[in-house]
Amino acid sequence: MAIALDRYVEVEVEPASRLIVRSEGEGAGLSDDPSHLAARVAIDVAGTDRLAITVRSQIPIARGLGSSAALAVAAAAAAGAEDPLAVAAHTDGHPDNAAASMVGGLVAAARVRGGVQAVRLALDVSLAFVVIVPDLTLSTSRARQALPTTVSRDSAAFNLSRTALLIAGLADSRVLISEATEDRLHQDYRSPLFPEAPKLLAGMSAGGALAVCWSGAGPALLGISRGAEAQGVQAAAVAALAEADVPGQVLVLHADMHGLIVDRNGSSDFFDFDAER
Amino acid sequence: MAIALDRYVEVEVEPASRLIVRSEGEGAGLSDDPSHLAARVAIDVAGTDRLAITVRSQIPIARGLGSSAALAVAAAAAAGAEDPLAVAAHTDGHPDNAAASMVGGLVAAARVRGGVQAVRLALDVSLAFVVIVPDLTLSTSRARQALPTTVSRDSAAFNLSRTALLIAGLADSRVLISEATEDRLHQDYRSPLFPEAPKLLAGMSAGGALAVCWSGAGPALLGISRGAEAQGVQAAAVAALAEADVPGQVLVLHADMHGLIVDRNGSSDFFDFDAER
Repeated sequence: MAIALDRYVEVEVEPASRLIVRSEGEGAGLSDDPSHLAARVAIDVAGTDRLAITVRSQIPIARGLGSSAALAVAAAAAAGAEDPLAVAAHTDGHPDNAAASMVGGLVAAARVRGGVQAVRLALDVSLAFVVIVPDLTLSTSRARQALPTTVSRDSAAFNLSRTALLIAGLADSRVLISEATEDRLHQDYRSPLFPEAPKLLAGMSAGGALAVCWSGAGPALLGISRGAEAQGVQAAAVAALAEADVPGQVLVLHADMHGLIVDRNGSSDFFDFDAER
Repeated sequence: MAIALDRYVEVEVEPASRLIVRSEGEGAGLSDDPSHLAARVAIDVAGTDRLAITVRSQIPIARGLGSSAALAVAAAAAAGAEDPLAVAAHTDGHPDNAAASMVGGLVAAARVRGGVQAVRLALDVSLAFVVIVPDLTLSTSRARQALPTTVSRDSAAFNLSRTALLIAGLADSRVLISEATEDRLHQDYRSPLFPEAPKLLAGMSAGGALAVCWSGAGPALLGISRGAEAQGVQAAAVAALAEADVPGQVLVLHADMHGLIVDRNGSSDFFDFDAER
């Protein structure tokens, strides 16, 4: 599952005489060349590299916040993909994140029959999501390597029951309990990569978060809160970061229920790349 | 998770000079003595065995249909338990089944802080549940022994994603897809105990079931269907049973949204067992 939150990435793709990649905001200038994810996706979709691609991102990268899935969806759509979700899930490998970026809200997604099936789940829009974004990046692949390849059946059943509690609680914050985000499959294994995480999570709980967890593979951490209590949770998170001497920022985000927005700029043949060749 | 379906067990508990256990319907006469689950629960709750206990059950036993959890909830309530769910979950060991019997509908339940947390999930009441009940019993403990103690992390993640799809589909039958009940944690391991199961499940799918699965630890099998298609699924299930030469019955059930009903029979001191001693 994934939830779309209100931080955005914007991708513009225009025909050009050669590939130009520009980037602003989060991740700006890190790879303004054909290796940029937006360039790889857009070139793949458009079938040409004669593109001018502009990326403006508000989503911190390599924090477990799904920035690459959001970027892939946006780039695929901007390049004219008929099914940006399929392109993004294929490129990024995270159908859940891509699905939430595509359709907004809380989404369950899975690969089925070679494609991605995504369905919306009910989400209590009064919830706020306090996000600790440490100035520390973890590559998803490194975070994944920290995980064991086998788990006990009891741990699998444990997480299944908590997932059901979490879905109920995300649909109705009145029944969201802290145990809904209990986990035996990944957080403890990843904590050695970010040893301060447990204390930071505990800080958000003490500050009023209903439930806390890692965001994806981390190191970003999530405090799920009633809207009215988000400021208190944020203050507690800021204090916990200072206490743990971890540099970083704390965002208060809310669900985005719209997902992908495509602006074709009034030009109906904007994406007619064949005509440009 | 568990769903309460509209088959019922009724338990009456009255003061008596010595323990009397009577049973009618499903499971009648199997253990009309102190070893009867209803007797064990009622004696435990009432603190005396000077009880006359009557059990009338419509729920086939030892089929993975949660009969013992339903019986435990009913017996605990009839004996005057303040928290029949806690008693039943403790006795039966299945907090999910006990919770659905207690509150009705689709319920997520988990043991937390020594108790049982149960929350309702949205359920599309237009769904019908076609249940194949073979004339074959499987003890839950034997069905559990068939399972491996460890599973791959990928299998655990696979079932987590399907659980989310299933919860979405149970809330809205329009998005219920057959992949929502795909499973890598128990069904294949249990099939050797009931080798005809895969064919029977396939028969219900071919007959129009939106999704099919084992009911709990089996051997009962579930075809989740649109209400209007339940008769066709039932017919397909009957044909599949005949084809596989498996004796049994096929029920068409619907969700029960009420759960436990306590009838105190107009007598306010009915449960005042101390006064009887």
